Parts: sequence; C-alpha cells; structure tokens
Amino acid sequence: VKPATVPDAERLARAALARVVEPGDAQVGALVRKAGAEAAWDAVRTRDPSAGAAVLALSRARVEAARPAEDLDVVTNLGGRLVCPGDAEWPPALDELEDLRPLALWVVGPLELREACARAVGIVGARAATRYGEQVAGEWAARLAEGGRVVLSGAAYGIDGAAHRGALAVSGGTVAVLACGVDIAYPRGHDGLLTQIRRTGAVVSEWPPGCAPMRHRFLTRNRVIAAATTATVVVEAAARSGALNTARSALALDRPVLIVPGPVTSAMSVGSNGLLRTEGVRAVGSVADVVEEVGRLGVDLAPALRGPNTARDALTAVVSRVLDAVPVRTPRGPASIAQAAGVEVGVVLRCLGPLELQGLVERQGAGYRLTKLDRPTAS
Amino acid sequence: VKPATVPDAERLARAALARVVEPGDAQVGALVRKAGAEAAWDAVRTRDPSAGAAVLALSRARVEAARPAEDLDVVTNLGGRLVCPGDAEWPPALDELEDLRPLALWVVGPLELREACARAVGIVGARAATRYGEQVAGEWAARLAEGGRVVLSGAAYGIDGAAHRGALAVSGGTVAVLACGVDIAYPRGHDGLLTQIRRTGAVVSEWPPGCAPMRHRFLTRNRVIAAATTATVVVEAAARSGALNTARSALALDRPVLIVPGPVTSAMSVGSNGLLRTEGVRAVGSVADVVEEVGRLGVDLAPALRGPNTARDALTAVVSRVLDAVPVRTPRGPASIAQAAGVEVGVVLRCLGPLELQGLVERQGAGYRLTKLDRPTAS
Repeated sequence: VKPATVPDAERLARAALARVVEPGDAQVGALVRKAGAEAAWDAVRTRDPSAGAAVLALSRARVEAARPAEDLDVVTNLGGRLVCPGDAEWPPALDELEDLRPLALWVVGPLELREACARAVGIVGARAATRYGEQVAGEWAARLAEGGRVVLSGAAYGIDGAAHRGALAVSGGTVAVLACGVDIAYPRGHDGLLTQIRRTGAVVSEWPPGCAPMRHRFLTRNRVIAAATTATVVVEAAARSGALNTARSALALDRPVLIVPGPVTSAMSVGSNGLLRTEGVRAVGSVADVVEEVGRLGVDLAPALRGPNTARDALTAVVSRVLDAVPVRTPRGPASIAQAAGVEVGVVLRCLGPLELQGLVERQGAGYRLTKLDRPTAS
Repeated sequence: VKPATVPDAERLARAALARVVEPGDAQVGALVRKAGAEAAWDAVRTRDPSAGAAVLALSRARVEAARPAEDLDVVTNLGGRLVCPGDAEWPPALDELEDLRPLALWVVGPLELREACARAVGIVGARAATRYGEQVAGEWAARLAEGGRVVLSGAAYGIDGAAHRGALAVSGGTVAVLACGVDIAYPRGHDGLLTQIRRTGAVVSEWPPGCAPMRHRFLTRNRVIAAATTATVVVEAAARSGALNTARSALALDRPVLIVPGPVTSAMSVGSNGLLRTEGVRAVGSVADVVEEVGRLGVDLAPALRGPNTARDALTAVVSRVLDAVPVRTPRGPASIAQAAGVEVGVVLRCLGPLELQGLVERQGAGYRLTKLDRPTAS
C-alpha cells in the first residue's frame, strides 16, 4: 500500500499560497477548503473574483513573489520536505484548527511529524525565565522524552530552549515550531540548538524558507504548538506572556493546559499561576502528573522514529546514499538497498520511513522504489 | 432586646460534657442534638442507658473529672467566656458541622466570635515553612486584616504564626483556634504571640482549660478552623501536612479552599500544589484573588470589634471598670456609664458589645444593666 501523498500540483499550490498569503488566515482556509488548494491558488494567481475580495486583497502585494518550486528545492536541499494535508505524515490533530489549519508545514529533520505529534507534549513559557523555570522545563522535558514523549516547543530563549535541550540531552525526540522559515536561525543564539534539532528531531514552520520572524507570526505560530500536541505545559509565564496565548489556543481546542505552579512572589509565574484560575486548566507538580493528564502511551504506538545522532552532513550523506540506491522502477527490498548503498540494513530501515513519508520513495510489496516526485522527469 | 443566651444549666452541662467526652465525637453530638445538652449530661453523669452504650463507654474514664463551674471560673478569670450554641456570639457557620459541631467554645479575647468568623479567612500551612511561605502568609494576613478580614489560624510555628503576626502587625483582628486549653501556651515559643492574641483578638478552643495538646486533637481542631472561616488559604503544605486535613474538612463543608502555589521543586509545596489537582480547589496568586473568592465585605458588616491595643492587664482593668459601672437593675446609657467608669464614651461602646455577647450585661431600651449571670446571687 502506497502511503497517501498529495499530488505534486497540490503541493506546489500550497507552497505558493504559503508564500503569497500570510498563514493562519481563516478566509484563505475557507477558500482552500471549498475550492481545493489548486483551484484556490489558480484563483489567487489569476486574480479571479471567485477567490473573494478579501483573499484577493490579502494576496495582492505578494502574488508575484510566488516561487513554489524554488522554495521546495531550498527545503529539499536542507534535507527537508513540505508536509501537506493529505500526506501520510500530516498530523490529523492539526485538522481541528479547521479553517485556521496550516496550508502546509515545511519540515526539516528525521522525526516523522504525524507520529511525533501523536506523542508530543508542548512545553512553553517565558523567554526571561528564572533558573527555577529553566530547571523544571529541562528536567521534565528530559524525563518526558525518556518516557517516549516528543517535546515540542517554539525554540525561543528561556523555557522553550531549556525544554528542547532537556529532550536532546537524553537523545529524545524534540520538535521546534518556528515563526520564521526553517532555514532561519532565530533567535541567533539558538543557531546551534536549531542545527541539532534539524539533525535529530524536526524543525517545522508554516512559513516558506527565508521568511523572517515577525511579531504577529509568533501569535499565529502559537496555535500550531497548541494544536500539534497532546497537551500544553506552561512552565513560567509573566503577566502578558505569549505562552498565555498558546494556552488559550489549547483551551479553545479543548486540549489539556497544564501549569507548573511557581512562587506567587515571582513575576515570571504571575501569568502561569493566573491561568490556574481559568476553568479547565490544571496544575501539575511532577512529570507523573503530566503523564496522568495526557494518558499513558498506548501499546499500539511504536517507538519514535529517529534519524542517526550524527552531524547533519553525515545524515544527509547517509540518506542520499540510501536514496541513490533505491531503484527507479523495479522495487528492491531493504537488504538489497543496503548492499547497494554500502550501509547497514538497520540504517536503510531508519531512512526508508522518512523518505517514504517525504514522498520520495514508495513501497511496492516488500520492496521500495522512487516515487514519480523523485524521478528526474517529475520536477 | 436581650441577646440570646443559653440558660446557666445548659452552659454548665456543655462545660461538663466538654471535659468528660473528647470534643468532635458524632455520637455525643447526636445525643446532645436529640436530648439537649442538660439531659445528655444528666444521662452521662448518672450512667443512664439512655445515653447509649457508645457514649457511656467514651465518657466512663473521665466522668468524675467534670468540674464545669471551676472551668468557667478559670476562663472567666482570664477575661474569657464559654460560648455555646444558642448564645448570640455563637458562629452559625459552625452549625454546618452538624453532629460534629463543638459542644461549646472557650474564648479569651475581645473579638466577638460570631462577627469575627463571618469575616474570617483561615490561613494555614506547614510548621516547617520556608521563608517564601512565611513571607506570603505574613504579607497576605496583614493585607487581609487591613481590609477588615479576621485572620484565623492554629497558632502553630511556621505559616500559622506568620499569619497571626501579619494581622497583629497592622492592628488587625486575628483568632487562634487551639488544640489545647485556652490557658496553655502551646507551642511554648508562641507564648508571647498567644498573649498578644488574647489581648486584641481571640484565642478559642473546644477543650476546657488545662487540657494538653495531643496529636489527635490537632486533627479534631482542624474541622473547626475549616468551619469557622469563609475560606481556607493553604500557603505551604508538605506531602502529609495537617493543613491538607483542614483543606479536606473545608471541601467537605463546601467552603472555598484556596492554594498559594509554590515551586514544584519545594518539598513544602508538594502537598499544597497537589491539592490544586483536587476538584473544587482554586489557586490564588494575590490577596485580590482571595478577596474575589470569599466575596467583598457586605456594606451591612460593621467594622470588626476590637479591644484596646494595650496590655492585657490594662484591658482587663478597663473592661472591669466599665462592668463595675453598669447598674444591677435600672438601666443606664453609655454616656452615664462612661462618667461613672471614668473612661471615654467610645471605650464604653467598645466594651459593651463584648460584655453583652458574653452575657454579662444586657440592653434595655437605650440603656444597659447587668444580667442575672453577673449578679452575685446568680453564680
């Protein structure tokens, strides 16, 4: 059975729309839902009234900037892919955003996004976190990751960074959802951290490569953090923290919002403690409390997929060798591919899943071959 | 209108029962409810089967120890009184304890108990509190007291002491509910604190004078802290803290249980943070949150009655002078009493309320006279 993959034309249309209209717009979402992505993009591109005046107004300034094939190339060169609704890797949890659902997600990193989100816990909080907050975020992230959870956060300074680092410290899965292109190192000081997450986890964004982080994009991004996870844990949040916005998104989606209590004398806990007074929000005093709230991992959930824990170049090299060894037409089994690629069969098995989910290879019987997408004639 | 006062015989019966049976027993409570206190005491004293086998068994060891008149004298000599259900000063909130309602309360201090409980906020927590907990307890108690609340606690080391001290620091009202006689300085190190509360607030106990604090008495006492207040604020509580027991009593009575969140890394907040995960428990991040939870003080509530902020001897002297100036038969107005006592009329007005509620003076028209209770022939 070939995993679900959206047609190339739709993928290109979604890539184009992602650049031409700002993600997170319900009017564009409604248009895509009604007309389909290809027709929506056609209408936007040709300035057809069927797109609706609002969407045409939104897309006017940038319609000439569309360059979907280039954007796909940039991300493919980073070892990434564009995950669209309809792809096997698309996390169904995001569909609950309805017309605010992302048009598509640019993803770099070996974690399979659908599976990662199914076991993801969001850990968010203050940038200007205290030592207490960073300590809790880091420790809990490590213990959650050890328990097979994926730690999802926003790669900001403070709590976000501590959470990602905690997961990485135990070689656990972590996903960074950015408010800028997946190729942008933002914040600057997290360049190394993001590189590490691209290697072993996943860096994700609604915005095409090159897009700069802008203030409003963080708020737009937060709904994805809320929707992509099984629960949102707020570790520290000042009175007007963006983490409160993420929490409100999660509440609107009826997802658990879990608060790490902090001293009432700490400005960095004013927002998070305050959330405790909101209907439906729960306090958590330990990792065990978090696990209790999000439910035990089902036995049907396989261990998280991981890319090799090596340098990015090494990963790219290995994946490329495997990909090069996958035949164009007649499928071959993993052992045969391993022999051709000159790598262990285990490495092939680790690479084939993500390659398949990126739509680069497809399964046929017990073997694999390249999809049309990866054949020279297709792009 | 003369304020409600229970007959002497009933007061003596309750005093006797309080010494002979351990307070907080539902079987004794049921007997008193059905038979009345006098008949209940008669049955216990005469070992009459109508008391029921269980109550007779409970009271067997101590029935000879009853000395109600002496106990009343001891507390009267401390400037105190025995407040019984039926007395005007009895806090109706305690009736919700039903058969666990105290038989009576020994009270020392100028605060009028009924009025104090109507505006009381319980602040409880760990004995081995941290600086954080004591700081919050002290500051919040001071601000609540400044706002006209009465701070009620258990006079223990740690949070309790900090709460009482916070209220006293702003000359606010505070009530200590003890698990031993009101004449006992327990804990020893709080001798001075208890003396101060007896002078300006109220020290309260179900146990007759001389009774020692015993482990089980603290748990029994906690239900009174929960029942006598409009809300219970838990500042810090370790995993097995007695404050959790108070909180559970409050929940059982459907009274607000308010938790001051603390760091999840602090052993002294494990119990209190844990309570946040209990249905019906709310977090409070500020005094404003507490006030929001217990409701604003109604305009009908008069400012808290206070004794003079002077030494106990001075207070006793002033009250004695006022009492001496109250006529035996023909009522006199406050101005006339003030003249006779040689004190300001404001002092007379401050003293008459408590004296009236202690059943020592009674109002007749615009004047006051001694009640039978205070006339030589009556006792």
